[in-house]
Amino acid sequence: MIRVLVVGYGYWGPNLVRNLVHCPTTQPVGICDRDPQRLAKARQIFPFIDTFTDLGAALASGVDAVLIATPASSHYPLAVRCLGAGKHVLIEKPLTRTSAEARDLIARADRAGRVLMVDHTFIHSPAVRRVKQMYDAGDLGEIYFIDSVRINLGLVQPDINVFWDLAPHDLSIIDHVLGRWPVQVAAFGKAHVNEREDVGLATFDYGDGLLAGVHVNWLSPVKLRQMVIGGSRRSLVLNDLDPVDKIRVYDKGVERQADPEDKHRLLIEYRLGDMWAPHLENEEPLQALVRHFAECIAERKTPVTDGRAGLRIVELLEATDRSLALSGTPVAPGRRGELGLRKVA
Amino acid sequence: MIRVLVVGYGYWGPNLVRNLVHCPTTQPVGICDRDPQRLAKARQIFPFIDTFTDLGAALASGVDAVLIATPASSHYPLAVRCLGAGKHVLIEKPLTRTSAEARDLIARADRAGRVLMVDHTFIHSPAVRRVKQMYDAGDLGEIYFIDSVRINLGLVQPDINVFWDLAPHDLSIIDHVLGRWPVQVAAFGKAHVNEREDVGLATFDYGDGLLAGVHVNWLSPVKLRQMVIGGSRRSLVLNDLDPVDKIRVYDKGVERQADPEDKHRLLIEYRLGDMWAPHLENEEPLQALVRHFAECIAERKTPVTDGRAGLRIVELLEATDRSLALSGTPVAPGRRGELGLRKVA
Amino acid sequence: MIRVLVVGYGYWGPNLVRNLVHCPTTQPVGICDRDPQRLAKARQIFPFIDTFTDLGAALASGVDAVLIATPASSHYPLAVRCLGAGKHVLIEKPLTRTSAEARDLIARADRAGRVLMVDHTFIHSPAVRRVKQMYDAGDLGEIYFIDSVRINLGLVQPDINVFWDLAPHDLSIIDHVLGRWPVQVAAFGKAHVNEREDVGLATFDYGDGLLAGVHVNWLSPVKLRQMVIGGSRRSLVLNDLDPVDKIRVYDKGVERQADPEDKHRLLIEYRLGDMWAPHLENEEPLQALVRHFAECIAERKTPVTDGRAGLRIVELLEATDRSLALSGTPVAPGRRGELGLRKVA
Amino acid sequence: MIRVLVVGYGYWGPNLVRNLVHCPTTQPVGICDRDPQRLAKARQIFPFIDTFTDLGAALASGVDAVLIATPASSHYPLAVRCLGAGKHVLIEKPLTRTSAEARDLIARADRAGRVLMVDHTFIHSPAVRRVKQMYDAGDLGEIYFIDSVRINLGLVQPDINVFWDLAPHDLSIIDHVLGRWPVQVAAFGKAHVNEREDVGLATFDYGDGLLAGVHVNWLSPVKLRQMVIGGSRRSLVLNDLDPVDKIRVYDKGVERQADPEDKHRLLIEYRLGDMWAPHLENEEPLQALVRHFAECIAERKTPVTDGRAGLRIVELLEATDRSLALSGTPVAPGRRGELGLRKVA
Repeated sequence: MIRVLVVGYGYWGPNLVRNLVHCPTTQPVGICDRDPQRLAKARQIFPFIDTFTDLGAALASGVDAVLIATPASSHYPLAVRCLGAGKHVLIEKPLTRTSAEARDLIARADRAGRVLMVDHTFIHSPAVRRVKQMYDAGDLGEIYFIDSVRINLGLVQPDINVFWDLAPHDLSIIDHVLGRWPVQVAAFGKAHVNEREDVGLATFDYGDGLLAGVHVNWLSPVKLRQMVIGGSRRSLVLNDLDPVDKIRVYDKGVERQADPEDKHRLLIEYRLGDMWAPHLENEEPLQALVRHFAECIAERKTPVTDGRAGLRIVELLEATDRSLALSGTPVAPGRRGELGLRKVA
Repeated sequence: MIRVLVVGYGYWGPNLVRNLVHCPTTQPVGICDRDPQRLAKARQIFPFIDTFTDLGAALASGVDAVLIATPASSHYPLAVRCLGAGKHVLIEKPLTRTSAEARDLIARADRAGRVLMVDHTFIHSPAVRRVKQMYDAGDLGEIYFIDSVRINLGLVQPDINVFWDLAPHDLSIIDHVLGRWPVQVAAFGKAHVNEREDVGLATFDYGDGLLAGVHVNWLSPVKLRQMVIGGSRRSLVLNDLDPVDKIRVYDKGVERQADPEDKHRLLIEYRLGDMWAPHLENEEPLQALVRHFAECIAERKTPVTDGRAGLRIVELLEATDRSLALSGTPVAPGRRGELGLRKVA
Repeated sequence: MIRVLVVGYGYWGPNLVRNLVHCPTTQPVGICDRDPQRLAKARQIFPFIDTFTDLGAALASGVDAVLIATPASSHYPLAVRCLGAGKHVLIEKPLTRTSAEARDLIARADRAGRVLMVDHTFIHSPAVRRVKQMYDAGDLGEIYFIDSVRINLGLVQPDINVFWDLAPHDLSIIDHVLGRWPVQVAAFGKAHVNEREDVGLATFDYGDGLLAGVHVNWLSPVKLRQMVIGGSRRSLVLNDLDPVDKIRVYDKGVERQADPEDKHRLLIEYRLGDMWAPHLENEEPLQALVRHFAECIAERKTPVTDGRAGLRIVELLEATDRSLALSGTPVAPGRRGELGLRKVA
Repeated sequence: MIRVLVVGYGYWGPNLVRNLVHCPTTQPVGICDRDPQRLAKARQIFPFIDTFTDLGAALASGVDAVLIATPASSHYPLAVRCLGAGKHVLIEKPLTRTSAEARDLIARADRAGRVLMVDHTFIHSPAVRRVKQMYDAGDLGEIYFIDSVRINLGLVQPDINVFWDLAPHDLSIIDHVLGRWPVQVAAFGKAHVNEREDVGLATFDYGDGLLAGVHVNWLSPVKLRQMVIGGSRRSLVLNDLDPVDKIRVYDKGVERQADPEDKHRLLIEYRLGDMWAPHLENEEPLQALVRHFAECIAERKTPVTDGRAGLRIVELLEATDRSLALSGTPVAPGRRGELGLRKVA
């Protein structure tokens, strides 16, 4: 049993605690928050878990690992303290506010021999796992385009804009499934509620014919969570809000062939096929994530969504910031090879 | 009865002829196409309409007006001949391949005193008419964002890219409903089937907090025709594929107010309200368009989608071309005032 | 080319004429209706088709076949005249108002050597054709239940109740796909608008574990056209209003097996599988129906939806009438073998 | 704080315990089940709650109230014991297996001055509460028809058929919202998996033009939870599976008026109007139910879903049994006035 402390009991914290309770390999033993009212609420639902307003006391209470679910700006200093105290750490997305902070956390975790993991929740969902299997097996073919819409009436965050809040989902799915790195990022945004962007449109050019559009938005009364992935062999729609058919695979598309009589001419053929929604396990992504965290600690494994995965997303978010500052002019993100993305041997 | 000649009997031509047949104020009297097989097909369904392979003969057969439904590159030369022969002209979108051609057609139509109209079909739909009423009445408030997705397995056009084929729908709806003009256009595209872009993402910055994203795509196996318009008072979704609820209005949103105790601080309030789908007339947009064309001819009125409306869209499409050539760098479209967009007095 | 006369130019007539125009093997040569205003409307759209207010004159004008699209009560007398004049006849559903009339028409057509066909439209749809293929191939297994809902704000018919208007669709699909005959029929209905039932619920017990429920309704503001067919191997949903996925096949279900240790005990296993929407041709059912009619005439074939198919449905509708008269008490329909349903050798 | 014991920790028990934990006025203090493995599972998630395999010990442990979530056959004997021990009792639907048992429980609770409540969950949902408000305010007008479909791949129950398992939901909603009592019940069912019906179709004739159809089914791979309520002024669809628009109100319908010129003739008018989805609170029905139970205990109030409400549903289910035994012949349920349904003064 991994003994876990949860730091931050706001919107997401209760979900984390509940999943730690249900996970057979973890035991939530502490909840830490600066707000005593939140802790009182926690005690009502989880009377068997200790609560703390002081992080030092919490870390000293005999915990193996810490889940950090606080505002993004505090991720780095809190994680530094937890790693310093010898704890394994799982941090909400985005991992940190800067790539420098992310690199520093990775180095600290490596030196301390502790697990550093980021909560890119959807990577652990049955749907994304299945999409990755299909892509790896070549079922989709070459990917032509991705269109991702993640909009709803969202909580306007105090310390980050809408890209940093929502785009980690889209970007981590693309990063995980395709393992591709964009050559160019262009981001456009507008702020209506406070000084940070609450509506954002970004385009990621991955080279080799792959273009990805991401629309994130806190002001939309309609909730959409939909990613269309178009491939040369098959295409699919990943719809997180569909209670049943979260993945729909379309076995149709456009094919081009050289004209047998005139090699310089292309023939275009439309392939019309079936639609197919694979059966998926009904597992809560957060439960799989918590179990994976415990397993990585117990078996000294590297998490699927490790610090480097977190760094990659932070690097792309910094690129959106630079493009925003240039009014949408495309910018190149740091090269993947230079990000220290290779595993430390 | 306006006697009408249809030039071009490919994909769209049969729909035009059928609507001319059903419209009480128009009479289709001729169909012109270079392909005799298409004309044979036309004669089977419409044995009472004359067919021509030669435009000169067709124009000489006693027609009042011409509908041009040929590939985009031929719109300008055909329209010049028709206006030169004293005919009123309705042209498929896009009006022309260049803004210079569009300006020239406008000038020729003005001089000849003939109606020049462009087939921005959706402007004539009951749904868009209702959206405009709502916007004009202030029901939506200030517009914050527009997200438009118009993707499906589309006919790959031989002479234009996917922006020129599909984006006129999105852009003409925004132009007509809001009457706004973008300060900046950024376009990204990829070509997979031939050398022209078949996947496109464009961002239009209208200033004053309004950002519009447009995704057009010929390679998507999923068909989507959806425009989300987010406003300060209400938001709506325009879904052309919903057989019943083409408009859904959401009476919820985010509101900001000054903190009464601290004037420099904003309070954010979430307004949660009902959804509402107004009843719409069940009229085919193309039927309304054809009737409007006949009415403008008969009553010497300026069409809602006149040559200037067509020019505005062509101007924006040219901006997408310039941005595409600059790999997505934002460009400014020509200023609206300089486009000759004011009506000739 | 089969020369066809259309009798009745009300709601459905224009659709029939349009499909006759588009069908390469039929030629609509006459339209007959008692209402001169309707005929004027017909002449505007189809100026090349003769119109008649007198059936005798119409039948004498050199036609091979007649389509009867008039109120149900007039089907029989009109068909008698047309068959008497040596014409092939296609009649809207329901074939007749009584099974006696249906038997008489069948006998007359047999004697005259003329084709008698009923417009059970959906039998000719790509979706129902595919469902029949699947059932015949054993893909569905044994059928356990059918639930059909066909409700909308419908035209309240003057001479028949809602069962006779809408249930022929459901019943003809079951009859065609399964070839089963119910042992018992129970029908419940209520009349709100006039004295005929406008809301109806009927249950058909086909024996051997198959139960079918049919809900037909003219007063529903929501339009539903959905048939769930549950089988031992697979189940499917036939949704006529889905623009894309008209058939959804579910590869999941409940299976029972004998307990290997205790033969008297059953083990129940849930099989969870994929969903699958087969690609269907995009053919209008009415076009397939018209072409089939012409083919049966030309090649002296028996239509899939022949007079006997029409009689079977009329027989079942009479059973609903008897049950309605008994306040829902179940009644047995006439036995299939006694209906003269076997083909005349 | 009401101290609560939960008896039965199978499928539904964990949901009850979780809601008792979250409810500020209840405290789950004991879980009782005959299966030690289930209790071990309970202790993992709720280590602060005592567990019992013996009901006597559990009842003696200082509890105020008991929630009974065991198979239906055991509801009555368990409730007798709990009421005998002076506890307030909340029982899963169906209240009991017979109306005699239900009457006896009501009498025992009345004599003991204890709260007897049945878990007709949906009565406590925001959606049904809103529907009742609308009906009571006259917004729907006179009700013409109800069509309820509640089908999915369900757990085949060991001791009751599908009507007793699922129809309490439909019947309790109709009972609560309309307060109407059927004059006639007809039920049809088939058993495929074991000897009890797993597919059921029932028709309830409420007199005065109101007909309700209920389809319940454990074998359907498609999950549907939909009730259409058609009224003279407005109609609505209650769709429990829609994550957002659980109620859709249709402001259209058919109206009949006397012909002003001929009083014996009716004119039918179709009213075409908007659709409207009211905003609903996002409250879990089970949470509202648990809070209501605690409030009734604390304030000595009669629950909305009291024993009499449970008896009414059991009475209707007995009528379905009688009709099933008569192969679907309609039967009359006991008269409402004779059911002891009036409150004991």
